[in-house]
Amino acid sequence: MRNAEPRVLVWNEYRHERNHPEIAAIYPDGMHGAIAAGLALHGLDVRTATLDEPEHGLTEAALAKTDVLIWWGHMFHDAVDDAVVERVRRRVLAGMGFIALHSSQDSKIFKRLMGTDCTVRWRDEGEKERLWVVAPEHPIAQGLGPYFELAREEMYGEPFGIPTPDELILVSWFQGGEIIRSGCTFKRGFGRIFYFRPGHESFPTYFDDNVRRVLANGCRWAAPNIDVAEPLQNKNQKALEPSGG
Amino acid sequence: MRNAEPRVLVWNEYRHERNHPEIAAIYPDGMHGAIAAGLALHGLDVRTATLDEPEHGLTEAALAKTDVLIWWGHMFHDAVDDAVVERVRRRVLAGMGFIALHSSQDSKIFKRLMGTDCTVRWRDEGEKERLWVVAPEHPIAQGLGPYFELAREEMYGEPFGIPTPDELILVSWFQGGEIIRSGCTFKRGFGRIFYFRPGHESFPTYFDDNVRRVLANGCRWAAPNIDVAEPLQNKNQKALEPSGG
Amino acid sequence: MRNAEPRVLVWNEYRHERNHPEIAAIYPDGMHGAIAAGLALHGLDVRTATLDEPEHGLTEAALAKTDVLIWWGHMFHDAVDDAVVERVRRRVLAGMGFIALHSSQDSKIFKRLMGTDCTVRWRDEGEKERLWVVAPEHPIAQGLGPYFELAREEMYGEPFGIPTPDELILVSWFQGGEIIRSGCTFKRGFGRIFYFRPGHESFPTYFDDNVRRVLANGCRWAAPNIDVAEPLQNKNQKALEPSGG
Amino acid sequence: MRNAEPRVLVWNEYRHERNHPEIAAIYPDGMHGAIAAGLALHGLDVRTATLDEPEHGLTEAALAKTDVLIWWGHMFHDAVDDAVVERVRRRVLAGMGFIALHSSQDSKIFKRLMGTDCTVRWRDEGEKERLWVVAPEHPIAQGLGPYFELAREEMYGEPFGIPTPDELILVSWFQGGEIIRSGCTFKRGFGRIFYFRPGHESFPTYFDDNVRRVLANGCRWAAPNIDVAEPLQNKNQKALEPSGG
Repeated sequence: MRNAEPRVLVWNEYRHERNHPEIAAIYPDGMHGAIAAGLALHGLDVRTATLDEPEHGLTEAALAKTDVLIWWGHMFHDAVDDAVVERVRRRVLAGMGFIALHSSQDSKIFKRLMGTDCTVRWRDEGEKERLWVVAPEHPIAQGLGPYFELAREEMYGEPFGIPTPDELILVSWFQGGEIIRSGCTFKRGFGRIFYFRPGHESFPTYFDDNVRRVLANGCRWAAPNIDVAEPLQNKNQKALEPSGG
Repeated sequence: MRNAEPRVLVWNEYRHERNHPEIAAIYPDGMHGAIAAGLALHGLDVRTATLDEPEHGLTEAALAKTDVLIWWGHMFHDAVDDAVVERVRRRVLAGMGFIALHSSQDSKIFKRLMGTDCTVRWRDEGEKERLWVVAPEHPIAQGLGPYFELAREEMYGEPFGIPTPDELILVSWFQGGEIIRSGCTFKRGFGRIFYFRPGHESFPTYFDDNVRRVLANGCRWAAPNIDVAEPLQNKNQKALEPSGG
Repeated sequence: MRNAEPRVLVWNEYRHERNHPEIAAIYPDGMHGAIAAGLALHGLDVRTATLDEPEHGLTEAALAKTDVLIWWGHMFHDAVDDAVVERVRRRVLAGMGFIALHSSQDSKIFKRLMGTDCTVRWRDEGEKERLWVVAPEHPIAQGLGPYFELAREEMYGEPFGIPTPDELILVSWFQGGEIIRSGCTFKRGFGRIFYFRPGHESFPTYFDDNVRRVLANGCRWAAPNIDVAEPLQNKNQKALEPSGG
Repeated sequence: MRNAEPRVLVWNEYRHERNHPEIAAIYPDGMHGAIAAGLALHGLDVRTATLDEPEHGLTEAALAKTDVLIWWGHMFHDAVDDAVVERVRRRVLAGMGFIALHSSQDSKIFKRLMGTDCTVRWRDEGEKERLWVVAPEHPIAQGLGPYFELAREEMYGEPFGIPTPDELILVSWFQGGEIIRSGCTFKRGFGRIFYFRPGHESFPTYFDDNVRRVLANGCRWAAPNIDVAEPLQNKNQKALEPSGG
């Protein structure tokens, strides 16, 4: 098992913050900046990348030094190049951890890894979300109480069009009457995936202490146990038994 | 719950049988023909479609009257049109059952639904495969003994690059020394998916009574519980509680 | 696969109703009577049994003609004889379906089948419960909308001390701020188990149409695919291969 | 997350070794001695306990300083006191890791945690076992190749009467023709459980390097993420929302 802290790359569209002063007021350094700052407080090694950089900042070289990729996308999913999506997907299959945040349930890369459309019911009115821990022993839940609250968030409700998660860690209660599976893990190839629901751009969610703790725990959980190399290949295999084949 | 027998469509590349006399000798009516004949013996309503038909025989009209689609592909995965793959995928998300056979683990549609590359180790030397039932109570295992054997099959071995199956029903033992998870179920959207390993074109696998029983059971299990309509959509939702939103 | 309707036995403590006039006013025929009446409306073959009958009404003979056993217990879990608990457990392992209702999460038989203490947070103040369907394609969810409501119920909240369910079908939202996994399935031996949360004795829950539909669906889902015979045994096995053993 | 090496307690019947010279010849320090020695080589903090010690060496005080308990039992399951079984079970629910070895599938404590009878098919003729890794990224599989072999072992075959494992890590191939799920994880309360199949007393399995690596990995994986305290309790909960309750 690897022991060093994982190298985290936080990816963000970074357009809301540049185009909307009211979003910039909440996230003056971008949402990626706020996420990265929170992870740095937890001792993680963090870099950032954004949509409008060349290759969206997700070059082979950038991914080669990334153990866990965090993804925030919302309005510009279609602007992400398919070749980059496939590059990220192959890197996940080879062992890179991947954390999809909030509206990234609708991103090309997350839907590609899930195989489904990952649809939700939604309502953007800024209501209370209370996230309940249903797997208290899970590494991602360490340091949380039985629940934590966000005073104002966008609502996402079931049915959530994901495959059955490998592990269900958090379930959200919303003031308006809905629930959703809001902390879910999946494995794809050698890679570990964590979907974490909160984080609408119009609320200061990524400054919240509990959210930052979940993200730090999530990075440590999603970090590969193996050296990230190549995805599995179809492979011809000689018989191991003399009587075989 | 729906009670009538599901309407099954068996899809096959149908090129091996036309291009190789030794395959034609085994499957004079094509592999799809042998599969369909076996299902008909179990009382199912079966049609067939093949790669070289217009739209591969998978038109919207054909899918609209299909409850369960069985897929056999091997050497010509790339010849399947991407638009047809997406059409099938959306139909699965809307509730159509899907059974992927043997080398269809490497088909576009199966990999697209899984999100992974679904790789295996393989050896094509014609050796004994013994399929053990690990979920004896499952509907797909009804009528089988504790195991059944195929005298000669291609070997597929672990690691099998699939997501964690929702249910593991069969595990294969091979004479040459390998094992593989050979009967696995998955859910995607409203659709139920069954991967069943056996069926190399150079062996008469689809005439085997146990194989045919598994396929018939699989069709009945994969048939939709609901009327197949549309996949789930992202959807705006009004607050259900007066205090909410 | 078996096709006839399952034979259901509804078991109830039946003491609240005899000792408390306000409960008797809600359930004049007992909670078992209300549950059985609902299942009969759905065409099921139903009998009942109660705690104070000889052997609690759960004789070998009674179980021998039962495909699915529904259990409601609350205040008198300890009054259930251990030998009867083990008799029921062995019958479940042999294939009988089992549905545990509400406070039966704390019954001897349910905890024995789970291996854990199945604890919950609770509040008995009569508040709104809204049950969301998170697995819309599951047989148990057929005929329900995206959610259904109960105007007044006891609250049960997470953490719910159960093993990971095989399938998660329903999640409840409570007016007071909690959520819980309220429709969960498990397999034990050949037997299928469904935990369904609602049903406090002081509310008319088992007269609710959606609750009755869930119970009827649950019985059909939990009914054995096989003839219920004996649980699996440890068994000496001769080698199947000449080179083996 | 806790970082120090877990404190491991290896429990063994330790009667075969004292009563049978041919077993003593293989395990002169007992099977617990060989297991403990292997874990010590991997840097773990290990103690041992055996059946014929007072309270089987599993006093409250002994468990209080144990992070992971390894269990080997075979012929004397019934000699284990029920009060000790319940003590261990409660400690697992409170977070202690538990590793059940080989014939411990039939121990009181393992069956109690699973809820089922955990039966297997078996054959004690000393044949080759090849353990395939089906979850290469899992912490328990780190440092293994795609498979490893034991030249002579007792055979255990499916159907294995366990609940659905949370994770399937190893599947065994046997020379005589069987397979079994041989490395499985389960969660019960706050505790993590790992079942690992090999280890018949008449073979030197616990001196094998790969077996020792799996055990060391297993201890690190099963070690609690939380401070082991009390199991969850049923608990009255005040409403969190003013409109609730």
